[in-house]
Amino acid sequence: MNKTDYIIRQIAKSYKKKYENYVITRIWHLLNNLNIKFVTQQHITRPTGRALTDMYFPQIQLHIEVDESQHFNADGTQVEQDIVREADIINATGHIIKRISIFAKSIEDNVEKSVENNIENINQQIDEVVDFIQNEIKTKIDTETLHLWDIEAEYNPQTYIDRGSISVDDNVAFRTIAHACNCFGHDYAGYQKAFAKHAVEEKMLWFPKLYENEEWENEISSDETEIRERYKLDHKAYFDKAKSSPDNLKERITFARVRSNLGDVMYRFKGVYKFDVPASEYAGKIIYKRTSNQVKTYKPMNHE
Amino acid sequence: MNKTDYIIRQIAKSYKKKYENYVITRIWHLLNNLNIKFVTQQHITRPTGRALTDMYFPQIQLHIEVDESQHFNADGTQVEQDIVREADIINATGHIIKRISIFAKSIEDNVEKSVENNIENINQQIDEVVDFIQNEIKTKIDTETLHLWDIEAEYNPQTYIDRGSISVDDNVAFRTIAHACNCFGHDYAGYQKAFAKHAVEEKMLWFPKLYENEEWENEISSDETEIRERYKLDHKAYFDKAKSSPDNLKERITFARVRSNLGDVMYRFKGVYKFDVPASEYAGKIIYKRTSNQVKTYKPMNHE
Repeated sequence: MNKTDYIIRQIAKSYKKKYENYVITRIWHLLNNLNIKFVTQQHITRPTGRALTDMYFPQIQLHIEVDESQHFNADGTQVEQDIVREADIINATGHIIKRISIFAKSIEDNVEKSVENNIENINQQIDEVVDFIQNEIKTKIDTETLHLWDIEAEYNPQTYIDRGSISVDDNVAFRTIAHACNCFGHDYAGYQKAFAKHAVEEKMLWFPKLYENEEWENEISSDETEIRERYKLDHKAYFDKAKSSPDNLKERITFARVRSNLGDVMYRFKGVYKFDVPASEYAGKIIYKRTSNQVKTYKPMNHE
Repeated sequence: MNKTDYIIRQIAKSYKKKYENYVITRIWHLLNNLNIKFVTQQHITRPTGRALTDMYFPQIQLHIEVDESQHFNADGTQVEQDIVREADIINATGHIIKRISIFAKSIEDNVEKSVENNIENINQQIDEVVDFIQNEIKTKIDTETLHLWDIEAEYNPQTYIDRGSISVDDNVAFRTIAHACNCFGHDYAGYQKAFAKHAVEEKMLWFPKLYENEEWENEISSDETEIRERYKLDHKAYFDKAKSSPDNLKERITFARVRSNLGDVMYRFKGVYKFDVPASEYAGKIIYKRTSNQVKTYKPMNHE
């Protein structure tokens, strides 16, 4: 997929609400910067719960909400109606959320009414958000912390090997399990299993489905600090075997299998998690607790 | 309908083709001028035939075509697949048509292939069109021939009474028959019939459906110089009666009943036409020939 295709397909996701396409295209065309990535219809998780935002700029951790309905959370994000099972939910704790209000409240005959803003007012709100985005970008450029949008490089392990680490805040996702493995000393052409050894450190690499599926009842807590796993077929036997295996007790660098809003399978970095045996005994599920948001990357060790 | 609503609804018509919404919103947001009107999915007629253009700026008689398919006329307009029976078809003779090419031709192994332009190239083409539009607007402003877009005034008879005339080139349409009549000396609150007397001149006002319907087999030639009318139930009797009525032989100021791309009924000014009896005898239909593209307007005569 090239940038043309990516941009057109992202914009096509914005046909859902009446004003959404207008707002999103205006922001994008006025911003007019092909070094900046955006995502539409992004699922997020925050301390206040899960939500969906209309436009997301990952490089500056900023979300846009087009307020044209009454169904909003206290923080201005949309109440999520139908979360997709495999959705790519990113942790948006600390992210900025900007709202474009299509309706204003007015009092008429002592009754509060919702009145549509005129187009000049809507445009002005959008223009202010565009200015804000420009400033955020400039700050990132000035502090040399902006990674220019490169649609090839962002899925290439070499990019993260060169950076020396992967952090949850960097919004890292890979197209294949092999690509993720290759950030940790491997040089795989292909790899299909959901569990692999780290080629350098005493850690494991894990690629779970964090949603209920045929064999597993899995979930991640909304603050993403805990993953819960239950083997539907015979959890007791699975648990007993798991806790006696040294590999299972190691820290696991975790990439969740997700589906992007364009339908592509991706492996999204979630952090490092560790099997908590006492908590698991108590819960009747295997509990993995997050131990770190960041991991070191390694170039191929060439011993494969 | 206000401008907000109009703009949002026009843009929503552009979801049909993959790149159309991207191109149209980019032109609109970069133009960034609420005094300029646009129409999407405009049916046109030209000497080369009928067509559909993606974006139309009536004030400067300019059309945009997003070329992303192979089905084009020699002049770059889209071949019309399914013309809506009641569609508002405007005469675009002499209008400018600008194309945005999504694909470029390239030769590979001696075979001509269609290759997608990259987003930088597409943006550059759009930016050049925006510059062109800005220049056209500037020329109109400099020569004091630009009528600023006023969504109320454009459907108000008073606007055209003040101007002193109505021309086909001005793209005039009214919401009701009464409004059209009121440009010619009347002061109607309502009027339902398709034929009326001019309140001042020895002319008639006519509001035909120029497409086949239950009782009538009507059409307008693609160059709009001729209207053909046949009464399905008993054409011979109708014709004999028509040619012996003095009113029918008068020039008729003609507003065709059409439906806009947003679904609204409108009465679109087509010019002045006159019953041609010999041609009608020969054709077996009543033939009206266009005698003028422009008519004088009158304020209410106050004798009603």
